[in-house]
Amino acid sequence: MKRIQKVAITGGTHGNELTGVYLIKKFIKNPNLVKRESFETIFMHTNLGAIEQCTRYVDKDLNRTFTLDGLNDNSLTSYEDIIAKKINQELGPKGSDNPNVDFVMDLHSTTSNMGLSICISTEDKLSWQVAAYVKEMIPEIHIFSWKGDTNDTSFISSIPPSGFTIEVGSIPQGVLRADMFFETERIIQAILNYFELYNSDEHTKKYNKIEIYDNVKAIDFPRDEQNSINAMVHPTLQENGYFKLKKGNPIFVDLDGNEILYDDIDGLYALFINEAAYYEKGVAMCLAEKKTIEI
Amino acid sequence: MKRIQKVAITGGTHGNELTGVYLIKKFIKNPNLVKRESFETIFMHTNLGAIEQCTRYVDKDLNRTFTLDGLNDNSLTSYEDIIAKKINQELGPKGSDNPNVDFVMDLHSTTSNMGLSICISTEDKLSWQVAAYVKEMIPEIHIFSWKGDTNDTSFISSIPPSGFTIEVGSIPQGVLRADMFFETERIIQAILNYFELYNSDEHTKKYNKIEIYDNVKAIDFPRDEQNSINAMVHPTLQENGYFKLKKGNPIFVDLDGNEILYDDIDGLYALFINEAAYYEKGVAMCLAEKKTIEI
Repeated sequence: MKRIQKVAITGGTHGNELTGVYLIKKFIKNPNLVKRESFETIFMHTNLGAIEQCTRYVDKDLNRTFTLDGLNDNSLTSYEDIIAKKINQELGPKGSDNPNVDFVMDLHSTTSNMGLSICISTEDKLSWQVAAYVKEMIPEIHIFSWKGDTNDTSFISSIPPSGFTIEVGSIPQGVLRADMFFETERIIQAILNYFELYNSDEHTKKYNKIEIYDNVKAIDFPRDEQNSINAMVHPTLQENGYFKLKKGNPIFVDLDGNEILYDDIDGLYALFINEAAYYEKGVAMCLAEKKTIEI
Repeated sequence: MKRIQKVAITGGTHGNELTGVYLIKKFIKNPNLVKRESFETIFMHTNLGAIEQCTRYVDKDLNRTFTLDGLNDNSLTSYEDIIAKKINQELGPKGSDNPNVDFVMDLHSTTSNMGLSICISTEDKLSWQVAAYVKEMIPEIHIFSWKGDTNDTSFISSIPPSGFTIEVGSIPQGVLRADMFFETERIIQAILNYFELYNSDEHTKKYNKIEIYDNVKAIDFPRDEQNSINAMVHPTLQENGYFKLKKGNPIFVDLDGNEILYDDIDGLYALFINEAAYYEKGVAMCLAEKKTIEI
Protein backbone atom coordinates (compact mmCIF):
# COMPACT_ATOMS: atom_id res chain seq x y z
CA MET A 1 0.00 0.00 0.00
CA LYS A 2 1.36 3.35 -1.11
CA ARG A 3 1.74 5.81 1.76
CA ILE A 4 0.11 9.23 1.56
CA GLN A 5 2.86 11.79 1.06
CA LYS A 6 1.13 15.05 0.32
CA VAL A 7 -2.41 16.35 0.81
CA ALA A 8 -3.82 19.64 -0.51
CA ILE A 9 -6.53 21.80 1.05
CA THR A 10 -7.89 24.30 -1.47
CA GLY A 11 -10.16 27.26 -0.72
CA GLY A 12 -11.55 30.22 -2.61
CA THR A 13 -12.10 28.21 -5.78
CA HIS A 14 -15.29 30.25 -5.75
CA GLY A 15 -14.15 33.63 -4.45
CA ASN A 16 -17.41 34.53 -2.70
CA GLU A 17 -17.53 31.33 -0.64
CA LEU A 18 -15.75 32.77 2.35
CA THR A 19 -15.59 29.70 4.58
CA GLY A 20 -12.78 28.22 2.51
CA VAL A 21 -11.13 31.60 1.95
CA TYR A 22 -10.85 32.26 5.68
CA LEU A 23 -9.91 28.70 6.67
CA ILE A 24 -6.95 28.93 4.30
CA LYS A 25 -6.06 32.33 5.86
CA LYS A 26 -6.19 30.64 9.26
CA PHE A 27 -3.86 27.85 8.13
CA ILE A 28 -1.46 30.37 6.56
CA LYS A 29 -1.18 32.04 9.97
CA ASN A 30 -0.84 28.77 11.82
CA PRO A 31 0.30 25.88 9.61
CA ASN A 32 0.68 23.63 12.63
CA LEU A 33 -3.09 23.25 12.72
CA VAL A 34 -2.99 21.03 9.64
CA LYS A 35 0.46 19.52 10.14
CA ARG A 36 0.74 15.75 10.60
CA GLU A 37 3.77 13.54 11.25
CA SER A 38 3.52 11.13 8.39
CA PHE A 39 2.70 13.36 5.41
CA GLU A 40 2.88 16.95 4.19
CA THR A 41 -0.22 19.16 4.08
CA ILE A 42 -0.30 22.08 1.68
CA PHE A 43 -3.08 24.67 1.45
CA MET A 44 -3.79 27.38 -1.04
CA HIS A 45 -6.22 30.01 -2.27
CA THR A 46 -6.96 28.86 -5.79
CA ASN A 47 -8.87 31.75 -7.40
CA LEU A 48 -7.15 34.88 -6.12
CA GLY A 49 -8.82 37.13 -8.71
CA ALA A 50 -12.30 36.04 -7.66
CA ILE A 51 -11.40 36.25 -3.95
CA GLU A 52 -10.21 39.83 -4.49
CA GLN A 53 -13.50 40.75 -6.15
CA CYS A 54 -15.60 38.58 -3.81
CA THR A 55 -17.26 36.99 -6.83
CA ARG A 56 -17.74 33.36 -7.77
CA TYR A 57 -15.34 33.72 -10.68
CA VAL A 58 -13.68 36.31 -12.89
CA ASP A 59 -14.44 34.91 -16.37
CA LYS A 60 -15.82 31.39 -15.88
CA ASP A 61 -16.42 28.82 -13.16
CA LEU A 62 -12.95 27.58 -12.10
CA ASN A 63 -14.48 24.44 -10.64
CA ARG A 64 -15.70 23.39 -14.08
CA THR A 65 -12.34 24.03 -15.75
CA PHE A 66 -10.31 20.94 -14.85
CA THR A 67 -11.28 18.69 -17.74
CA LEU A 68 -8.33 17.03 -19.46
CA ASP A 69 -9.38 18.58 -22.76
CA GLY A 70 -9.54 22.06 -21.27
CA LEU A 71 -6.24 21.73 -19.45
CA ASN A 72 -4.57 20.65 -22.68
CA ASP A 73 -6.18 23.36 -24.82
CA ASN A 74 -3.80 26.32 -25.05
CA SER A 75 -6.27 28.35 -27.05
CA LEU A 76 -8.33 28.88 -23.89
CA THR A 77 -7.16 32.17 -22.39
CA SER A 78 -9.77 33.21 -19.82
CA TYR A 79 -8.49 34.06 -16.33
CA GLU A 80 -9.72 30.76 -14.96
CA ASP A 81 -8.35 28.71 -17.87
CA ILE A 82 -4.92 30.21 -17.22
CA ILE A 83 -4.89 29.66 -13.46
CA ALA A 84 -6.35 26.17 -13.89
CA LYS A 85 -3.27 25.19 -15.88
CA LYS A 86 -0.99 26.54 -13.13
CA ILE A 87 -2.94 24.78 -10.37
CA ASN A 88 -2.88 21.59 -12.43
CA GLN A 89 0.91 21.78 -12.65
CA GLU A 90 1.17 22.34 -8.90
CA LEU A 91 -1.25 19.65 -7.75
CA GLY A 92 -1.18 17.21 -10.65
CA PRO A 93 -0.85 17.10 -13.48
CA LYS A 94 -4.19 15.45 -14.07
CA GLY A 95 -3.84 12.01 -15.59
CA SER A 96 -0.40 11.45 -14.10
CA ASP A 97 0.36 8.17 -12.31
CA ASN A 98 2.45 10.15 -9.88
CA PRO A 99 0.71 13.48 -9.20
CA ASN A 100 2.30 16.06 -6.92
CA VAL A 101 -0.41 15.58 -4.30
CA ASP A 102 -2.17 12.40 -3.29
CA PHE A 103 -5.47 13.99 -2.32
CA VAL A 104 -7.31 17.29 -2.82
CA MET A 105 -10.06 18.47 -0.51
CA ASP A 106 -11.73 21.59 -1.94
CA LEU A 107 -13.72 23.83 0.42
CA HIS A 108 -17.08 25.21 -0.69
CA SER A 109 -20.27 26.66 0.69
CA THR A 110 -23.78 26.79 -0.70
CA THR A 111 -26.83 28.99 -0.19
CA SER A 112 -28.79 25.74 0.03
CA ASN A 113 -29.64 24.60 3.53
CA MET A 114 -28.04 21.17 3.26
CA GLY A 115 -25.80 21.14 6.31
CA LEU A 116 -22.52 19.28 5.89
CA SER A 117 -21.90 17.35 2.70
CA ILE A 118 -19.13 15.64 0.83
CA CYS A 119 -19.55 15.76 -2.95
CA ILE A 120 -17.65 12.90 -4.47
CA SER A 121 -17.19 12.39 -8.20
CA THR A 122 -14.79 9.50 -8.55
CA GLU A 123 -14.68 5.72 -8.46
CA ASP A 124 -11.33 5.94 -6.65
CA LYS A 125 -11.26 3.53 -3.70
CA LEU A 126 -9.20 5.73 -1.37
CA SER A 127 -11.61 8.66 -1.75
CA TRP A 128 -14.50 6.45 -0.72
CA GLN A 129 -12.62 5.09 2.29
CA VAL A 130 -11.90 8.66 3.42
CA ALA A 131 -15.57 9.59 2.99
CA ALA A 132 -16.65 6.56 5.01
CA TYR A 133 -14.25 7.42 7.82
CA VAL A 134 -15.48 11.03 7.92
CA LYS A 135 -19.07 9.77 7.96
CA GLU A 136 -18.24 7.55 10.94
CA MET A 137 -16.61 10.46 12.80
CA ILE A 138 -19.29 13.02 11.83
CA PRO A 139 -22.49 11.02 11.29
CA GLU A 140 -24.59 14.05 10.32
CA ILE A 141 -22.59 14.50 7.14
CA HIS A 142 -24.23 13.53 3.85
CA ILE A 143 -22.36 11.90 0.99
CA PHE A 144 -23.52 13.12 -2.42
CA SER A 145 -22.26 11.20 -5.40
CA TRP A 146 -22.23 13.55 -8.34
CA LYS A 147 -20.20 13.67 -11.50
CA GLY A 148 -20.93 17.38 -11.96
CA ASP A 149 -22.70 19.08 -14.80
CA THR A 150 -20.03 18.61 -17.45
CA ASN A 151 -19.26 15.49 -19.46
CA ASP A 152 -15.74 15.00 -18.15
CA THR A 153 -14.75 15.44 -14.50
CA SER A 154 -14.09 19.15 -14.20
CA PHE A 155 -13.71 19.81 -10.47
CA ILE A 156 -10.38 20.86 -8.99
CA SER A 157 -10.60 17.82 -6.73
CA SER A 158 -10.33 15.63 -9.85
CA ILE A 159 -6.70 16.60 -10.51
CA PRO A 160 -5.22 13.60 -8.67
CA PRO A 161 -7.17 10.34 -8.66
CA SER A 162 -8.19 10.90 -5.01
CA GLY A 163 -10.13 13.84 -3.66
CA PHE A 164 -13.55 15.38 -3.12
CA THR A 165 -15.41 18.60 -2.41
CA ILE A 166 -16.68 19.70 0.99
CA GLU A 167 -19.96 21.65 0.81
CA VAL A 168 -21.57 23.38 3.79
CA GLY A 169 -24.68 25.52 3.96
CA SER A 170 -26.77 27.47 4.04
CA ILE A 171 -24.38 30.38 3.80
CA PRO A 172 -25.08 33.42 1.62
CA GLN A 173 -22.37 34.32 -0.88
CA GLY A 174 -19.97 36.85 0.58
CA VAL A 175 -20.74 35.89 4.19
CA LEU A 176 -18.72 34.18 6.93
CA ARG A 177 -20.79 32.03 9.24
CA ALA A 178 -19.03 30.95 12.42
CA ASP A 179 -20.84 27.66 13.02
CA MET A 180 -20.21 26.43 9.48
CA PHE A 181 -16.61 27.67 9.59
CA PHE A 182 -15.80 25.46 12.57
CA GLU A 183 -17.80 22.52 11.20
CA THR A 184 -15.80 22.66 7.97
CA GLU A 185 -12.58 22.71 9.97
CA ARG A 186 -13.82 19.65 11.86
CA ILE A 187 -14.26 17.81 8.55
CA ILE A 188 -10.75 18.83 7.43
CA GLN A 189 -9.25 17.56 10.69
CA ALA A 190 -11.08 14.24 10.33
CA ILE A 191 -9.67 13.79 6.83
CA LEU A 192 -6.13 14.56 7.97
CA ASN A 193 -6.57 12.16 10.89
CA TYR A 194 -7.60 9.47 8.46
CA PHE A 195 -4.42 9.83 6.44
CA GLU A 196 -2.33 9.72 9.61
CA LEU A 197 -4.01 6.42 10.50
CA TYR A 198 -3.70 5.22 6.93
CA ASN A 199 0.05 5.75 7.00
CA SER A 200 0.46 4.03 10.36
CA ASP A 201 0.46 0.35 11.15
CA GLU A 202 -2.54 0.89 13.40
CA HIS A 203 -4.81 1.46 10.48
CA THR A 204 -6.61 -1.78 9.83
CA LYS A 205 -10.25 -0.74 9.50
CA LYS A 206 -11.64 -1.00 6.05
CA TYR A 207 -15.12 0.23 5.24
CA ASN A 208 -17.20 -2.03 3.03
CA LYS A 209 -20.27 0.08 2.43
CA ILE A 210 -21.59 3.59 2.70
CA GLU A 211 -24.94 5.37 2.51
CA ILE A 212 -24.99 7.88 -0.30
CA TYR A 213 -27.27 10.18 -2.24
CA ASP A 214 -26.64 9.25 -5.85
CA ASN A 215 -27.37 12.03 -8.31
CA VAL A 216 -30.20 11.25 -10.75
CA LYS A 217 -30.86 14.60 -12.41
CA ALA A 218 -30.97 18.33 -11.97
CA ILE A 219 -34.22 20.20 -12.48
CA ASP A 220 -34.66 23.80 -13.50
CA PHE A 221 -37.06 26.45 -12.30
CA PRO A 222 -40.25 26.82 -14.32
CA ARG A 223 -39.65 29.62 -16.84
CA ASP A 224 -41.81 31.84 -19.04
CA GLU A 225 -41.58 32.38 -22.81
CA GLN A 226 -38.69 34.85 -22.26
CA ASN A 227 -36.83 32.16 -20.28
CA SER A 228 -37.29 34.20 -17.09
CA ILE A 229 -37.93 32.26 -13.90
CA ASN A 230 -41.63 32.44 -13.08
CA ALA A 231 -41.79 30.19 -10.04
CA MET A 232 -39.81 29.89 -6.80
CA VAL A 233 -38.80 26.96 -4.61
CA HIS A 234 -41.79 26.02 -2.47
CA PRO A 235 -41.42 27.08 1.18
CA THR A 236 -41.71 23.47 2.37
CA LEU A 237 -38.44 22.68 0.58
CA GLN A 238 -36.58 25.98 1.08
CA GLU A 239 -34.92 25.11 4.38
CA ASN A 240 -34.90 21.34 3.93
CA GLY A 241 -31.88 19.96 2.15
CA TYR A 242 -32.16 16.22 1.42
CA PHE A 243 -35.96 16.48 1.34
CA LYS A 244 -37.67 13.24 0.29
CA LEU A 245 -40.11 13.97 -2.51
CA LYS A 246 -43.34 12.15 -3.22
CA LYS A 247 -45.52 12.63 -6.26
CA GLY A 248 -47.95 15.44 -5.51
CA ASN A 249 -45.70 17.32 -3.08
CA PRO A 250 -45.66 21.05 -3.83
CA ILE A 251 -42.19 21.75 -5.21
CA PHE A 252 -42.46 25.26 -6.69
CA VAL A 253 -44.83 28.17 -6.21
CA ASP A 254 -45.34 30.63 -9.05
CA LEU A 255 -45.19 34.41 -8.62
CA ASP A 256 -48.97 34.48 -8.23
CA GLY A 257 -48.93 31.94 -5.43
CA ASN A 258 -50.05 28.85 -7.35
CA GLU A 259 -48.38 25.64 -6.25
CA ILE A 260 -46.63 23.42 -8.78
CA LEU A 261 -46.58 19.76 -7.80
CA TYR A 262 -43.78 17.23 -8.06
CA ASP A 263 -44.55 14.66 -10.71
CA ASP A 264 -41.33 12.71 -11.11
CA ILE A 265 -39.94 9.49 -9.62
CA ASP A 266 -41.33 8.81 -6.14
CA GLY A 267 -38.86 8.88 -3.29
CA LEU A 268 -36.01 10.91 -4.76
CA TYR A 269 -34.27 13.37 -2.44
CA ALA A 270 -33.89 17.05 -3.27
CA LEU A 271 -30.60 18.78 -2.51
CA PHE A 272 -28.70 21.88 -3.65
CA ILE A 273 -32.13 23.47 -3.34
CA ASN A 274 -32.04 27.15 -4.34
CA GLU A 275 -28.26 27.52 -4.70
CA ALA A 276 -27.66 31.08 -5.95
CA ALA A 277 -24.85 30.12 -8.32
CA TYR A 278 -26.99 27.52 -10.07
CA TYR A 279 -29.64 29.97 -11.32
CA GLU A 280 -27.40 30.70 -14.32
CA LYS A 281 -26.80 26.97 -14.79
CA GLY A 282 -30.54 26.30 -15.01
CA VAL A 283 -30.62 24.25 -11.83
CA ALA A 284 -33.22 24.82 -9.11
CA MET A 285 -32.23 21.66 -7.26
CA CYS A 286 -30.66 18.25 -7.76
CA LEU A 287 -32.59 15.02 -7.29
CA ALA A 288 -30.80 11.99 -5.91
CA GLU A 289 -31.50 8.40 -4.97
CA LYS A 290 -30.61 7.32 -1.45
CA LYS A 291 -28.82 3.99 -1.42
CA THR A 292 -26.12 2.02 0.31
CA ILE A 293 -23.27 0.99 -1.95
CA GLU A 294 -20.32 -1.32 -1.56
CA ILE A 295 -16.97 0.39 -1.56
CA MET B 1 -54.47 68.20 2.51
CA LYS B 2 -52.81 67.46 -0.80
CA ARG B 3 -54.08 64.27 -2.39
CA ILE B 4 -51.61 61.57 -3.39
CA GLN B 5 -51.40 61.51 -7.18
CA LYS B 6 -48.55 59.18 -8.04
CA VAL B 7 -46.64 56.50 -6.15
CA ALA B 8 -43.51 54.68 -7.33
CA ILE B 9 -42.42 51.12 -6.52
CA THR B 10 -38.75 50.59 -7.34
CA GLY B 11 -36.92 47.26 -7.46
CA GLY B 12 -33.51 46.03 -8.49
CA THR B 13 -31.73 49.08 -7.08
CA HIS B 14 -29.32 46.36 -5.98
CA GLY B 15 -29.33 43.95 -8.89
CA ASN B 16 -28.71 40.81 -6.83
CA GLU B 17 -31.65 41.39 -4.48
CA LEU B 18 -34.11 39.36 -6.47
CA THR B 19 -37.26 39.90 -4.39
CA GLY B 20 -37.67 43.42 -5.77
CA VAL B 21 -36.53 42.43 -9.25
CA TYR B 22 -39.19 39.72 -9.54
CA LEU B 23 -41.98 41.70 -7.85
CA ILE B 24 -41.51 44.42 -10.48
CA LYS B 25 -41.58 41.69 -13.18
CA LYS B 26 -44.85 40.47 -11.67
CA PHE B 27 -46.36 43.99 -11.76
CA ILE B 28 -45.19 44.51 -15.36
CA LYS B 29 -47.15 41.39 -16.33
CA ASN B 30 -50.21 42.37 -14.30
CA PRO B 31 -50.33 46.10 -13.50
CA ASN B 32 -53.82 45.72 -12.03
CA LEU B 33 -52.26 44.21 -8.91
CA VAL B 34 -50.96 47.63 -7.86
CA LYS B 35 -53.66 49.80 -9.46
CA ARG B 36 -55.83 51.95 -7.23
CA GLU B 37 -58.77 54.22 -8.03
CA SER B 38 -57.55 57.48 -6.55
CA PHE B 39 -53.91 57.63 -7.68
CA GLU B 40 -51.48 56.28 -10.23
CA THR B 41 -48.91 53.61 -9.32
CA ILE B 42 -45.75 53.31 -11.37
CA PHE B 43 -43.10 50.62 -10.95
CA MET B 44 -39.67 50.23 -12.40
CA HIS B 45 -36.40 48.30 -12.37
CA THR B 46 -33.89 50.97 -11.41
CA ASN B 47 -30.46 49.37 -11.99
CA LEU B 48 -30.86 47.37 -15.18
CA GLY B 49 -27.10 46.91 -15.60
CA ALA B 50 -26.73 45.34 -12.17
CA ILE B 51 -29.87 43.22 -12.64
CA GLU B 52 -28.44 41.90 -15.90
CA GLN B 53 -25.18 40.94 -14.14
CA CYS B 54 -26.93 39.82 -10.93
CA THR B 55 -24.56 42.00 -8.92
CA ARG B 56 -25.25 44.66 -6.32
CA TYR B 57 -24.01 47.39 -8.67
CA VAL B 58 -21.98 47.95 -11.82
CA ASP B 59 -19.61 50.72 -10.68
CA LYS B 60 -20.88 51.98 -7.30
CA ASP B 61 -23.82 51.53 -4.93
CA LEU B 62 -26.82 53.16 -6.66
CA ASN B 63 -28.60 53.48 -3.34
CA ARG B 64 -25.88 55.83 -2.07
CA THR B 65 -25.94 57.99 -5.20
CA PHE B 66 -28.97 60.23 -4.66
CA THR B 67 -27.32 63.09 -2.75
CA LEU B 68 -28.20 66.53 -4.09
CA ASP B 69 -24.50 67.24 -4.61
CA GLY B 70 -23.97 64.04 -6.59
CA LEU B 71 -27.08 64.53 -8.71
CA ASN B 72 -25.91 68.05 -9.61
CA ASP B 73 -22.31 67.02 -10.34
CA ASN B 74 -21.97 66.41 -14.07
CA SER B 75 -18.34 65.34 -13.70
CA LEU B 76 -19.51 62.03 -12.18
CA THR B 77 -19.76 59.54 -15.02
CA SER B 78 -19.98 56.08 -13.46
CA TYR B 79 -22.84 53.87 -14.64
CA GLU B 80 -24.78 54.49 -11.45
CA ASP B 81 -24.14 58.25 -11.46
CA ILE B 82 -25.60 58.43 -14.95
CA ILE B 83 -28.71 56.34 -14.26
CA ALA B 84 -29.26 58.13 -10.94
CA LYS B 85 -29.66 61.40 -12.84
CA LYS B 86 -32.22 59.80 -15.18
CA ILE B 87 -34.16 58.25 -12.30
CA ASN B 88 -34.06 61.57 -10.47
CA GLN B 89 -35.64 63.30 -13.49
CA GLU B 90 -38.33 60.65 -13.70
CA LEU B 91 -39.26 60.49 -10.01
CA GLY B 92 -38.19 63.93 -8.77
CA PRO B 93 -36.22 65.96 -9.22
CA LYS B 94 -34.94 65.85 -5.66
CA GLY B 95 -35.48 69.14 -3.87
CA SER B 96 -38.51 70.06 -5.96
CA ASP B 97 -41.70 71.26 -4.25
CA ASN B 98 -43.65 69.39 -6.86
CA PRO B 99 -41.83 66.13 -7.65
CA ASN B 100 -43.17 63.76 -10.28
CA VAL B 101 -44.07 61.16 -7.68
CA ASP B 102 -45.42 61.70 -4.18
CA PHE B 103 -43.88 58.62 -2.62
CA VAL B 104 -41.13 56.08 -3.39
CA MET B 105 -41.04 52.61 -1.84
CA ASP B 106 -37.77 50.88 -2.72
CA LEU B 107 -37.60 47.07 -2.45
CA HIS B 108 -34.55 45.43 -0.89
CA SER B 109 -33.42 42.22 0.73
CA THR B 110 -30.63 41.46 3.18
CA THR B 111 -28.59 38.41 4.12
CA SER B 112 -29.27 39.41 7.73
CA ASN B 113 -32.04 37.47 9.44
CA MET B 114 -34.12 40.50 10.42
CA GLY B 115 -37.51 39.55 9.03
CA LEU B 116 -39.59 42.44 7.71
CA SER B 117 -38.33 45.99 8.17
CA ILE B 118 -39.00 49.49 6.99
CA CYS B 119 -35.88 51.67 6.86
CA ILE B 120 -36.91 55.26 7.13
CA SER B 121 -34.52 58.18 6.74
CA THR B 122 -36.71 61.27 6.73
CA GLU B 123 -38.52 63.62 9.12
CA ASP B 124 -41.38 63.79 6.62
CA LYS B 125 -44.73 63.41 8.41
CA LEU B 126 -46.49 61.47 5.65
CA SER B 127 -43.74 58.82 5.54
CA TRP B 128 -44.14 58.23 9.25
CA GLN B 129 -47.93 57.96 9.00
CA VAL B 130 -47.52 55.35 6.25
CA ALA B 131 -45.03 53.42 8.39
CA ALA B 132 -47.40 53.52 11.38
CA TYR B 133 -50.29 52.24 9.27
CA VAL B 134 -48.18 49.39 7.88
CA LYS B 135 -47.05 48.53 11.41
CA GLU B 136 -50.71 48.36 12.52
CA MET B 137 -51.59 46.07 9.58
CA ILE B 138 -48.43 43.93 9.86
CA PRO B 139 -47.38 44.08 13.52
CA GLU B 140 -44.29 41.90 13.08
CA ILE B 141 -42.63 44.58 10.96
CA HIS B 142 -39.78 46.56 12.52
CA ILE B 143 -39.23 50.26 11.87
CA PHE B 144 -35.55 51.17 11.63
CA SER B 145 -34.75 54.87 11.63
CA TRP B 146 -31.48 55.30 9.80
CA LYS B 147 -30.02 58.17 7.86
CA GLY B 148 -27.67 55.85 5.99
CA ASP B 149 -23.93 55.83 5.94
CA THR B 150 -23.39 59.04 3.96
CA ASN B 151 -23.65 62.61 5.21
CA ASP B 152 -26.54 63.63 3.00
CA THR B 153 -29.59 61.43 2.30
CA SER B 154 -28.46 59.25 -0.57
CA PHE B 155 -31.16 56.61 -0.91
CA ILE B 156 -33.40 56.47 -3.97
CA SER B 157 -36.37 56.79 -1.61
CA SER B 158 -35.11 60.29 -0.72
CA ILE B 159 -35.92 61.74 -4.17
CA PRO B 160 -39.35 63.06 -3.18
CA PRO B 161 -39.88 64.22 0.41
CA SER B 162 -41.90 61.06 1.18
CA GLY B 163 -40.68 57.50 0.91
CA PHE B 164 -38.78 54.67 2.54
CA THR B 165 -37.01 51.39 1.95
CA ILE B 166 -38.47 47.94 2.53
CA GLU B 167 -35.90 45.40 3.74
CA VAL B 168 -36.60 41.67 4.12
CA GLY B 169 -34.30 38.87 5.15
CA SER B 170 -32.52 36.68 5.47
CA ILE B 171 -32.16 36.08 1.75
CA PRO B 172 -28.83 35.27 0.11
CA GLN B 173 -27.83 37.54 -2.75
CA GLY B 174 -28.95 36.09 -6.06
CA VAL B 175 -31.74 34.02 -4.51
CA LEU B 176 -35.53 34.21 -4.68
CA ARG B 177 -37.26 33.13 -1.50
CA ALA B 178 -40.99 32.53 -1.82
CA ASP B 179 -42.06 33.40 1.72
CA MET B 180 -40.21 36.73 1.69
CA PHE B 181 -41.46 37.49 -1.82
CA PHE B 182 -45.09 37.28 -0.73
CA GLU B 183 -44.40 39.12 2.56
CA THR B 184 -42.86 42.00 0.63
CA GLU B 185 -45.88 42.10 -1.65
CA ARG B 186 -48.10 42.24 1.45
CA ILE B 187 -46.20 45.33 2.64
CA ILE B 188 -46.57 46.98 -0.79
CA GLN B 189 -50.31 46.31 -0.78
CA ALA B 190 -50.66 47.79 2.72
CA ILE B 191 -48.88 50.97 1.59
CA LEU B 192 -51.08 51.32 -1.47
CA ASN B 193 -54.17 50.72 0.68
CA TYR B 194 -53.04 53.50 2.98
CA PHE B 195 -52.86 56.00 0.11
CA GLU B 196 -56.30 54.97 -1.08
CA LEU B 197 -57.66 55.66 2.40
CA TYR B 198 -55.65 58.86 2.60
CA ASN B 199 -57.26 60.17 -0.58
CA SER B 200 -60.78 59.23 0.54
CA ASP B 201 -63.05 60.99 2.97
CA GLU B 202 -63.08 57.85 5.11
CA HIS B 203 -59.51 58.40 6.24
CA THR B 204 -59.61 59.98 9.64
CA LYS B 205 -57.15 57.94 11.69
CA LYS B 206 -53.97 59.76 12.54
CA TYR B 207 -51.14 57.96 14.31
CA ASN B 208 -49.48 59.88 17.13
CA LYS B 209 -46.62 57.60 18.06
CA ILE B 210 -44.63 54.65 16.80
CA GLU B 211 -42.09 52.17 18.17
CA ILE B 212 -38.80 52.40 16.33
CA TYR B 213 -35.22 51.21 16.38
CA ASP B 214 -33.20 54.41 16.16
CA ASN B 215 -29.74 53.93 14.68
CA VAL B 216 -26.90 54.72 17.09
CA LYS B 217 -23.84 53.44 15.28
CA ALA B 218 -22.44 50.80 12.99
CA ILE B 219 -19.67 48.51 14.21
CA ASP B 220 -17.09 46.73 12.11
CA PHE B 221 -15.66 43.23 12.34
CA PRO B 222 -12.45 42.88 14.32
CA ARG B 223 -9.59 43.04 11.84
CA ASP B 224 -5.91 42.14 11.81
CA GLU B 225 -2.94 44.33 10.94
CA GLN B 226 -3.61 43.72 7.20
CA ASN B 227 -7.18 44.96 7.71
CA SER B 228 -8.46 41.44 7.05
CA ILE B 229 -11.44 40.30 9.10
CA ASN B 230 -10.24 38.00 11.87
CA ALA B 231 -13.46 37.34 13.72
CA MET B 232 -16.99 36.33 12.75
CA VAL B 233 -20.43 37.18 14.07
CA HIS B 234 -21.05 35.05 17.16
CA PRO B 235 -23.53 32.20 16.54
CA THR B 236 -25.90 33.56 19.21
CA LEU B 237 -26.46 36.66 17.07
CA GLN B 238 -26.26 35.11 13.59
CA GLU B 239 -29.93 34.26 13.19
CA ASN B 240 -31.28 36.89 15.58
CA GLY B 241 -31.98 40.26 14.00
CA TYR B 242 -32.97 42.92 16.55
CA PHE B 243 -30.99 41.10 19.25
CA LYS B 244 -30.84 43.04 22.54
CA LEU B 245 -27.21 43.30 23.66
CA LYS B 246 -25.94 43.44 27.22
CA LYS B 247 -22.40 44.13 28.25
CA GLY B 248 -20.57 40.82 28.38
CA ASN B 249 -22.62 39.08 25.68
CA PRO B 250 -20.42 37.28 23.16
CA ILE B 251 -20.71 39.28 19.95
CA PHE B 252 -17.88 37.94 17.75
CA VAL B 253 -15.82 34.77 17.71
CA ASP B 254 -12.34 34.85 16.23
CA LEU B 255 -11.04 32.31 13.74
CA ASP B 256 -9.49 30.31 16.59
CA GLY B 257 -12.78 30.10 18.48
CA ASN B 258 -12.15 32.77 21.13
CA GLU B 259 -15.23 34.79 22.03
CA ILE B 260 -15.15 38.58 21.87
CA LEU B 261 -17.54 40.23 24.29
CA TYR B 262 -19.82 43.21 23.78
CA ASP B 263 -18.58 46.17 25.77
CA ASP B 264 -20.68 49.09 24.55
CA ILE B 265 -23.91 50.74 25.73
CA ASP B 266 -26.18 48.30 27.55
CA GLY B 267 -29.50 47.52 25.92
CA LEU B 268 -28.82 48.48 22.30
CA TYR B 269 -30.31 46.23 19.62
CA ALA B 270 -28.21 44.66 16.88
CA LEU B 271 -29.58 44.56 13.33
CA PHE B 272 -28.27 44.23 9.81
CA ILE B 273 -26.15 41.50 11.41
CA ASN B 274 -23.79 39.91 8.86
CA GLU B 275 -25.14 41.60 5.72
CA ALA B 276 -22.91 40.46 2.84
CA ALA B 277 -22.87 43.85 1.10
CA TYR B 278 -21.68 45.63 4.23
CA TYR B 279 -18.39 43.75 4.53
CA GLU B 280 -16.86 46.21 2.06
CA LYS B 281 -18.43 49.11 3.98
CA GLY B 282 -16.80 48.00 7.23
CA VAL B 283 -20.08 47.17 8.92
CA ALA B 284 -20.64 43.90 10.80
CA MET B 285 -23.94 45.11 12.26
CA CYS B 286 -25.83 48.26 13.21
CA LEU B 287 -26.71 49.09 16.82
CA ALA B 288 -29.95 50.89 17.55
CA GLU B 289 -31.92 52.18 20.49
CA LYS B 290 -35.51 50.99 20.84
CA LYS B 291 -37.87 53.84 21.61
CA THR B 292 -41.35 55.14 21.03
CA ILE B 293 -41.45 58.50 19.31
CA GLU B 294 -44.20 61.01 18.60
CA ILE B 295 -45.00 61.43 14.95
